[in-house]
Amino acid sequence: MPELVGNLLVGQSGGPTAVINASVAGVLQEAGKHESIEEIYGGLNGILGILNEELIDINDEKARTIEGLRYTPAAALGTCRYKIDFKKKPEKAAQDMDRLFEVFQAHNIRYFFYAGGNDSQDTSHKIHLEAVKRAWDMRVIGVPKTIDNDLPHTDSCPGYGSAVKYCATTVLEVATDVSSMATDDGSCCIIEVMGRAAGWIAAGTVVAKQGNPANAPHIILLPELPFNEEKFLAKVQETVAAYKYCIVVVGEGLKNEQGEEIGADKTRLDAFGHAVLAGAAEKLKEIIQGKMNLKTRTVMLGYAQRAAAHIASATDANNAHACGVAAVKAAVEGQSGFMVKIVRDVQADGSIKWSTGLQPLEDIANVEHFIPKDWIGEDGFLPNEKFVEYARPLIEGEVKVPMEGGLPKYVSLEKSKVEKKLAPRA
Amino acid sequence: MPELVGNLLVGQSGGPTAVINASVAGVLQEAGKHESIEEIYGGLNGILGILNEELIDINDEKARTIEGLRYTPAAALGTCRYKIDFKKKPEKAAQDMDRLFEVFQAHNIRYFFYAGGNDSQDTSHKIHLEAVKRAWDMRVIGVPKTIDNDLPHTDSCPGYGSAVKYCATTVLEVATDVSSMATDDGSCCIIEVMGRAAGWIAAGTVVAKQGNPANAPHIILLPELPFNEEKFLAKVQETVAAYKYCIVVVGEGLKNEQGEEIGADKTRLDAFGHAVLAGAAEKLKEIIQGKMNLKTRTVMLGYAQRAAAHIASATDANNAHACGVAAVKAAVEGQSGFMVKIVRDVQADGSIKWSTGLQPLEDIANVEHFIPKDWIGEDGFLPNEKFVEYARPLIEGEVKVPMEGGLPKYVSLEKSKVEKKLAPRA
Repeated sequence: MPELVGNLLVGQSGGPTAVINASVAGVLQEAGKHESIEEIYGGLNGILGILNEELIDINDEKARTIEGLRYTPAAALGTCRYKIDFKKKPEKAAQDMDRLFEVFQAHNIRYFFYAGGNDSQDTSHKIHLEAVKRAWDMRVIGVPKTIDNDLPHTDSCPGYGSAVKYCATTVLEVATDVSSMATDDGSCCIIEVMGRAAGWIAAGTVVAKQGNPANAPHIILLPELPFNEEKFLAKVQETVAAYKYCIVVVGEGLKNEQGEEIGADKTRLDAFGHAVLAGAAEKLKEIIQGKMNLKTRTVMLGYAQRAAAHIASATDANNAHACGVAAVKAAVEGQSGFMVKIVRDVQADGSIKWSTGLQPLEDIANVEHFIPKDWIGEDGFLPNEKFVEYARPLIEGEVKVPMEGGLPKYVSLEKSKVEKKLAPRA
Repeated sequence: MPELVGNLLVGQSGGPTAVINASVAGVLQEAGKHESIEEIYGGLNGILGILNEELIDINDEKARTIEGLRYTPAAALGTCRYKIDFKKKPEKAAQDMDRLFEVFQAHNIRYFFYAGGNDSQDTSHKIHLEAVKRAWDMRVIGVPKTIDNDLPHTDSCPGYGSAVKYCATTVLEVATDVSSMATDDGSCCIIEVMGRAAGWIAAGTVVAKQGNPANAPHIILLPELPFNEEKFLAKVQETVAAYKYCIVVVGEGLKNEQGEEIGADKTRLDAFGHAVLAGAAEKLKEIIQGKMNLKTRTVMLGYAQRAAAHIASATDANNAHACGVAAVKAAVEGQSGFMVKIVRDVQADGSIKWSTGLQPLEDIANVEHFIPKDWIGEDGFLPNEKFVEYARPLIEGEVKVPMEGGLPKYVSLEKSKVEKKLAPRA
């Protein structure tokens, strides 16, 4: 493959995670090692900033700040939810694509990396196809990212391990609290976690049980399995009878048997037309208090669960970084149109060797990866040993976050802008 | 004061905290040093267990487990919400008091320590008065505990610093996340924290600003100040105009101008007859989305904020431990009827030397300590520098929690029961 000399552009997309910056650090740190990569740019707020020709000059950033991205949550370059939608808005999508390539060409972008989830991998795929079609020699590699863990073909998604580590720690700590107050009246606490379609995070909190059936969580409700009120209440009652308390974890997208989200507020839609969800735990609380008169409290972790870098998983952060590094290496070697994937290799002694691989973007875009059915226990209320074996290694190890004045000391980029060369976007 | 030889009983009461066990560790470790203290017992689930003669033999616990209490959240001995209420239920209260002294006498309890908040200090005070009245030579010392920070006469309450450290870290991390997604549409995130009457925790999150007005939290709503919808919406709009996003922290007990809690569910009451609160953040979200069409999300930390020992404040944990130690020392020296208080001594170099003192229980019981009015900014939306100066030192330092398999490794007591000597409680 001939050497391709030019500039690099990296962007972040979709909901941030505790480790998406670690991936960007991997891209930036690896990029600095290759002479064929001249200028290194970041796109401000992902595709949205690139459309507006808002590029950040990474050369102006300190090496120490880049290294600090390895423990800093959220999207240091800024992110967006913006979809180039050829199906619903073909004209707008075509205009957007023209504009992107104007920007790429004006700034001689030859390496493009985009860190994101399903929609973002779809965007990367389309940009790759367009580059080929327009004969613009540019290497496009997707970097996986999503706490939802629903990208296919990769062992896991960077961001997921840290979200699980934080949520499982919360479950463990809340359970310690609730069980220490548990008197004969019993009590229940419902912890709501993210997960619209797939219940990977909710299921992941099963690691807090640490092999002991008496430990929380006692019930995990997944969006994949229709909610059955009667069976649920029976299980709560059984749990309270046995342990005097019950910890329930619910994925926000829990659905009833008609497929309607039990906590959905249908009056609000997000930029992708999905209903805004907020109330699964509150709804369950209403049901329990209404039918059982059991003292019930809720915890709704919301954005905190994807930003809690103070208790990020070192395994997750290292894998995220490795994905960034691998993306640049693959592109320099001439690859394009792939997403980096994480590969798990279990050693003879049971330890895991993590590595990366490449998967064509066309296999990834808009495919959702669900929890295998045989990883869920028979009654549907808890993932089984197969799931635990999968999830446990993902939370291993702690990321060292510097603290100052009692709070985490995260870094932020200078974000000095690259001079614009084009007229403003129409 | 003559030496008093006999057994020690320690109990925990009310909602647990991240450091109430550190106080118990202080009591137990100090008690072991005094020959006048013979057997060391714990009350299972506070007063409730003592009434049922459910005592735990601490001599059967490993020293390493006791030391582990210094970083283990919740109430290791179990706790309860049980009030000896001479006003509302005088007959029941008199029966309870008789029973308590039966238990004290049967087990030769000469040292009694009770860790808790307002109601619990009231219980300790009544027990002290009864001991004097009954001429049962027993020394009673209250140990302060409450994330609500509303006990008077003490600089701060053990549990508060750790709750603030966790909530402020959450605010900081969520703000990093939300700001990185902030595009021209703007967005808002509301974080609800505990605090029924006093907004100490909500106010405490101001430390996350770290002196920068642009930093979150942008608005803090305290239960002490009546909520004014119009002014609030104007402040949200002003903040979003300036920074493209707005982080609001709200204390659960926020009240409207009629004094009604805006998030109260009046159909549910707790054991003390207080309305169950859960919905201040959701209510504010409804208001913002209804009036401003601004994308708004909520986080409801609930029990997590008082159990998050994984990011406990070392200052708080050390002060909690010191209170336990000081309680035993005072009792051995002959004191009774006091609560240990925390004393702050600012040194010439600005550093703080923490110590403990004693305050008569009669000054403490059922008195609520509110935030001084001159610690709140003029518009009522943020505490001022005086508050920051108070709160910042309380979150300093990190407690080292051992981790295993990616999760905190907390200890639990064996809880071997002391043989009962009395007939079951009537």
